[in-house]
Amino acid sequence: MTIQLYCFGESGNSYKAALALELSGLDWAPVFVDFFGGETRRPDYRETVNPLGEAPVLVDGDFRTSQSGAIQTYVTELTGKFGGESRKDRYEILRWVLWDNHKLSSMAGMTRFLMNFLPEDKRPAEVIAFNQGRLKAAYATLDSHLEGRDWIVGDGLTNADLSCCGYLFYTEPFGFDRGDWTNIDRWLSNIERTPGWKHPYDLMPGSPADRA
Amino acid sequence: MTIQLYCFGESGNSYKAALALELSGLDWAPVFVDFFGGETRRPDYRETVNPLGEAPVLVDGDFRTSQSGAIQTYVTELTGKFGGESRKDRYEILRWVLWDNHKLSSMAGMTRFLMNFLPEDKRPAEVIAFNQGRLKAAYATLDSHLEGRDWIVGDGLTNADLSCCGYLFYTEPFGFDRGDWTNIDRWLSNIERTPGWKHPYDLMPGSPADRA
Repeated sequence: MTIQLYCFGESGNSYKAALALELSGLDWAPVFVDFFGGETRRPDYRETVNPLGEAPVLVDGDFRTSQSGAIQTYVTELTGKFGGESRKDRYEILRWVLWDNHKLSSMAGMTRFLMNFLPEDKRPAEVIAFNQGRLKAAYATLDSHLEGRDWIVGDGLTNADLSCCGYLFYTEPFGFDRGDWTNIDRWLSNIERTPGWKHPYDLMPGSPADRA
Repeated sequence: MTIQLYCFGESGNSYKAALALELSGLDWAPVFVDFFGGETRRPDYRETVNPLGEAPVLVDGDFRTSQSGAIQTYVTELTGKFGGESRKDRYEILRWVLWDNHKLSSMAGMTRFLMNFLPEDKRPAEVIAFNQGRLKAAYATLDSHLEGRDWIVGDGLTNADLSCCGYLFYTEPFGFDRGDWTNIDRWLSNIERTPGWKHPYDLMPGSPADRA
């Protein structure tokens, strides 16, 4: 049975799940979520898709979960991929996935939304500047960790990479420029060179071009 | 050997780890982190304690990890407690822990810091108001989920509860009032009645009283 992923192209959180599914070789198909049309905020979405009102959501027969880190864990459980080689690796991956949810993707996703997907006269300048300061500290931590490393944990692609890269391939401005962060830039290139890699807008339905 | 937890009382993220350790019955002791004195920002903390510059950090002999969700996972691995009864429960716990890191504790911790631990003339009003709006949506999601439930997942205390409650016992104002959220209030009382439960300032060294 084909795994369904409720997702949309602009969502880096969806991308983390979609990229794990795609690179794992599992049979999956996207189900478009009309986030910008308000779908995740409608009662029927909470009732029938996800009570937490979020995307992505994975549905595999009777199994259903949300949160990209939980979906990545499911992909690892099914395929044995991206979960690390040792107990030490597994904990390192988990803490980087949590760190990403806590400090990187949550903040990057929100800031990118505020700067690109709100009407210009509704963009909160103080919030954007504050978030960019927080993000700069997160980029610095990640860049420093990647000094001398090709991957965040161990010798290959893991869920740590698939989580932390979630928003970093988008070109809409949110205060992140690959050129400013040598090690992050090299690491993103490693991910891009992984066979089967696709940009979010090529992997999932929905992009700003649809609404232009 | 006694497990060490680098932590401080004002940190709800530390509390999530400390409460899991305390209620699990493991032998542990806090190591005070002088966050307000700048300890986590100093190079020696990154070099010797945690390259990510965060608290909490757990040290158990040769094993070391940070991020409260990873520490909770370690406590569950050692004791079999708080990890759920079934595969379905384990995924539900994981997604609530991720949700908490993404949308609840990250935002609550930051907002509480801005409103209470910055000098009054440095508190960014627009950021605080924006965060409180985001938090209100998170409280609503949690309160709605707890309708008719005593615990977030299954029939007893799990890491989902120990994560989501991280900042909700603090009384410093950050826009959360238990009285506004009937189901959250009842659920927090369930946690408080758990044998061995302690308030963050009774469980870990460091509190605003020390700096008064």
